[in-house]
Amino acid sequence: MDYEIFQLGDITLQSEMTLRNAFLAYKTYGTLNAQKSNAIVYPTWYSGQHYDNEWLIGKGMALDPQKYFIIVPNMLGNGLSSSPSNTPQPFDKARFPEVTVYDQVRFQHQLVTQKFGIEKIALVTGWSMGAQQTFQWGASYPDMVERIAPFAGTAKTWPHNVVFLEGVKAAVRADAAWKDGWYSEPPTKGLRAVGRVYAGWGLSQAFYREERYRDMGYHSLEDFLVGYWEGFFLKKDANNLLAMAWTWSHADISANPLYHGDFEKALSSIKARAIVMPGRTDLYFTPEDGEYEARRMPNATFRPIESIWGHFAGGGINPADTKFIDNNIKELLSQ
Amino acid sequence: MDYEIFQLGDITLQSEMTLRNAFLAYKTYGTLNAQKSNAIVYPTWYSGQHYDNEWLIGKGMALDPQKYFIIVPNMLGNGLSSSPSNTPQPFDKARFPEVTVYDQVRFQHQLVTQKFGIEKIALVTGWSMGAQQTFQWGASYPDMVERIAPFAGTAKTWPHNVVFLEGVKAAVRADAAWKDGWYSEPPTKGLRAVGRVYAGWGLSQAFYREERYRDMGYHSLEDFLVGYWEGFFLKKDANNLLAMAWTWSHADISANPLYHGDFEKALSSIKARAIVMPGRTDLYFTPEDGEYEARRMPNATFRPIESIWGHFAGGGINPADTKFIDNNIKELLSQ
Repeated sequence: MDYEIFQLGDITLQSEMTLRNAFLAYKTYGTLNAQKSNAIVYPTWYSGQHYDNEWLIGKGMALDPQKYFIIVPNMLGNGLSSSPSNTPQPFDKARFPEVTVYDQVRFQHQLVTQKFGIEKIALVTGWSMGAQQTFQWGASYPDMVERIAPFAGTAKTWPHNVVFLEGVKAAVRADAAWKDGWYSEPPTKGLRAVGRVYAGWGLSQAFYREERYRDMGYHSLEDFLVGYWEGFFLKKDANNLLAMAWTWSHADISANPLYHGDFEKALSSIKARAIVMPGRTDLYFTPEDGEYEARRMPNATFRPIESIWGHFAGGGINPADTKFIDNNIKELLSQ
Repeated sequence: MDYEIFQLGDITLQSEMTLRNAFLAYKTYGTLNAQKSNAIVYPTWYSGQHYDNEWLIGKGMALDPQKYFIIVPNMLGNGLSSSPSNTPQPFDKARFPEVTVYDQVRFQHQLVTQKFGIEKIALVTGWSMGAQQTFQWGASYPDMVERIAPFAGTAKTWPHNVVFLEGVKAAVRADAAWKDGWYSEPPTKGLRAVGRVYAGWGLSQAFYREERYRDMGYHSLEDFLVGYWEGFFLKKDANNLLAMAWTWSHADISANPLYHGDFEKALSSIKARAIVMPGRTDLYFTPEDGEYEARRMPNATFRPIESIWGHFAGGGINPADTKFIDNNIKELLSQ
């Protein structure tokens, strides 16, 4: 096991359900300095786990463990932190309670403050749902978070993004083997279908036109659909995917007692210096939505990733995009 | 029955399968003049039937039955012409043979020439897969077709569009009730899932952001997803949908003995005066692909429909888009 567990105890969620003996799985990189001023929080994305974030961490990079203490908390629902797949009865599987992004960040805040005694965070950054948690950190703890660098994600889930997720959810639910969540064998047809549905959304029209999946080692479109997309989702637990999809669909930095749904107010309350980096060709976390949000944040710069890699511009696969993100985070950390 | 049947007899397809006693369902509007110079062909779209095309036909419109003889041939696979759902054993259901767009247009050509003795067609026009058939008419019969006005469709199905269709197909196939096509009761979960998958593709991000489904009489996003999208696909036959998806995925005006896969040559062979009208925010028949194609057609003008209605800019729902299309066809017909 290459990660640590932080016991959250019995946690009450926004849904007013209590999750007993909840826990956060996390991994840290580097050393917290004496002043506790070098902490970076880097949450995970939809079904990603801490090791999936490591492409942005390294010597000479912005997230350099020789300089920073980088905490990667696994999102609840991702299979390592409390999730449908690892929670005992009666809150297991289809009965796992709904967890909001606000909840996620509250628990990460407990980890950061109670476990490490950190009072200021130098940076929060993340991709996709990780970006949503990043925005939420800025809105939930405006005096604690000095900088945020959300990439390929938005401060709320805009309506078309909700519709995209409806397609993903419907694909797994169409498989009778899913059994309303009470499967003991995985609903593989549904998971494969999720892969095929997701494939068109994850990457741009131009990516497919230019057959850039060849850069990833796939030799035909069908090879990519089976080898990458079906393979990716077959490794995931269906209930976990649905739980995280709920979290994603309901993301909104203002949907909480701090802002009572006033999205503009929540955006304007983010004090952190910010660089907002949507992917130019991202089909669900669109640059238009990112720009709308960045314009309402007092200390934000809007810098889209000029890439044909769609949502995956933030996924660490295309070196040029990684360099762009890394350079911007370096710039942000130097300020 | 508000349409006619044209018996095709035993037809041999590009797939080298023979469909026995095949037939085309079609409807005509207006009267063929003595010179047979006022014919317009207006093919149908994915699962659409002739009456679904009528929004673009009417007195005072470009497609005016008082001036033109408008033939709307139903596509094979759409449930009215020969289709999985209406073909007798052994070529019924899952065994319905693969039909290409080239095949579709060959059979329409038989109708036009053999039934009506038409030698020149004033215009071919259509939406989506209807646009694909329109391009194919131009490439298959360059000396016969005087004008084409394809809207929200392309001359071949570009790769990302194929990926989108993979998601649609996977959604219906994930439902065990589909039974590999041998269902007797419709696979309703799969059809509903298709609706939810399709919803994000059919209309743009901005459409959902601005809640334009309210213009269509739906009062919430979920109302639209169930009332429009699930309702739409529940009325369709799953095997018909899969058959048409095969046709769509394999569309390419050059994939035939005339052009042997030379797409550029096929485009440059279209002699018809053309106005190519993709939707500016269409997510699968993209304006980029449309522009690429129009630039290679010797007599084509590229005029995107500036609309946030995505693919549905060509669907006859948004009055401004309908007016744009109608005006352009009027201009084209006046030349």
